[in-house]
Amino acid sequence: MDAHTPDGAIEFWFDFGSAYAYFAALGIDALAERVGRPVLWRPYMLGTAFKATGARGLSSTPLKSDYALRDWQRLARLHGVPFSPPSGHPTVALAATRAFYHLEEEAPDLARRFAAAMFASYYRGEKDAGNAQDVADICAALGADRAAVLAALDAPGLKARTREIGEGAVARGIFGSPFFVVDGEPFFGADRMAMMEDWIRRGGW
Amino acid sequence: MDAHTPDGAIEFWFDFGSAYAYFAALGIDALAERVGRPVLWRPYMLGTAFKATGARGLSSTPLKSDYALRDWQRLARLHGVPFSPPSGHPTVALAATRAFYHLEEEAPDLARRFAAAMFASYYRGEKDAGNAQDVADICAALGADRAAVLAALDAPGLKARTREIGEGAVARGIFGSPFFVVDGEPFFGADRMAMMEDWIRRGGW
Repeated sequence: MDAHTPDGAIEFWFDFGSAYAYFAALGIDALAERVGRPVLWRPYMLGTAFKATGARGLSSTPLKSDYALRDWQRLARLHGVPFSPPSGHPTVALAATRAFYHLEEEAPDLARRFAAAMFASYYRGEKDAGNAQDVADICAALGADRAAVLAALDAPGLKARTREIGEGAVARGIFGSPFFVVDGEPFFGADRMAMMEDWIRRGGW
Repeated sequence: MDAHTPDGAIEFWFDFGSAYAYFAALGIDALAERVGRPVLWRPYMLGTAFKATGARGLSSTPLKSDYALRDWQRLARLHGVPFSPPSGHPTVALAATRAFYHLEEEAPDLARRFAAAMFASYYRGEKDAGNAQDVADICAALGADRAAVLAALDAPGLKARTREIGEGAVARGIFGSPFFVVDGEPFFGADRMAMMEDWIRRGGW
């Protein structure tokens, strides 16, 4: 939680390079609207969690990498959305993560629209969430000041704030992407969104 | 696949020490009946998969272990079933896995009933799936010859067959528990059972 957390919010923790987070991002706002809760979008670097868990990314894990690619393509067909991330997938999405928090200082809704646009562009294979110029292009298309974004991405203050947000999440037990927290209850994985919705409606069980 | 695989079967791969497999086992037969498919229950040692993936068990992974325990208790309350495995959880369930294949040589249905009974007893904290005497008790309660079970558990033939089944699964890309394969399509995790059911009904997508 931080100063941006609205009361009753669903915290939505994700890494832009996480394909399961892309699918989660497609549905989280609609879910929240159904249960009358705000969403706090919270990108972070999954590598920060991997340092604590000793885990590694799906894409670099034998057997799991083949399954994950097949599963992502299957989910994309199910949801009728593109799935063709850049060839370097998964990217190290530090630029996009920092840009999100820069935009959030201006306007939380702008940051949320940036996140959705970044996901859409990355998973269409257009813009790389790890490339500052690409990230600035997305920001500019939403009306943000491109030069200010690029300057901010190199500013020590934004770097530190981004790192602190991620480390704070991991210190609270957040270790995956997507990972949700609502009413103090953690839910890991896009597959748990239905359970989380049920949990909110019933007030837990 | 092996000689025991009926046409159109849902292969259900699991480790008796895997709590998510316990929850999956509670629902897989009903799912299969709804879609008119047989189930091939296939215990194996998850450690065999870990050797290939480099992964380790949830219970020995920082952060994930706390989440998993909370999640298992939450699932148990949701399903109205006990969840109090022995203090050594997760056990190394080699005895139960071998006993399953011993019983299957006599009668596949007996093996399936053993698996369900073993899960129920282990997760009530009564019998340890890694303890040969406990495993033989479960077999005997189902009418099997207790002494023959204990003798078989030490027989080189059963040990080799059990190991080959597990290694064969991993060679086919099976890496988790529970893990399902139906019509050539893999589904990892109890959370994917609804998707698998939909896949079977629709003939894929």
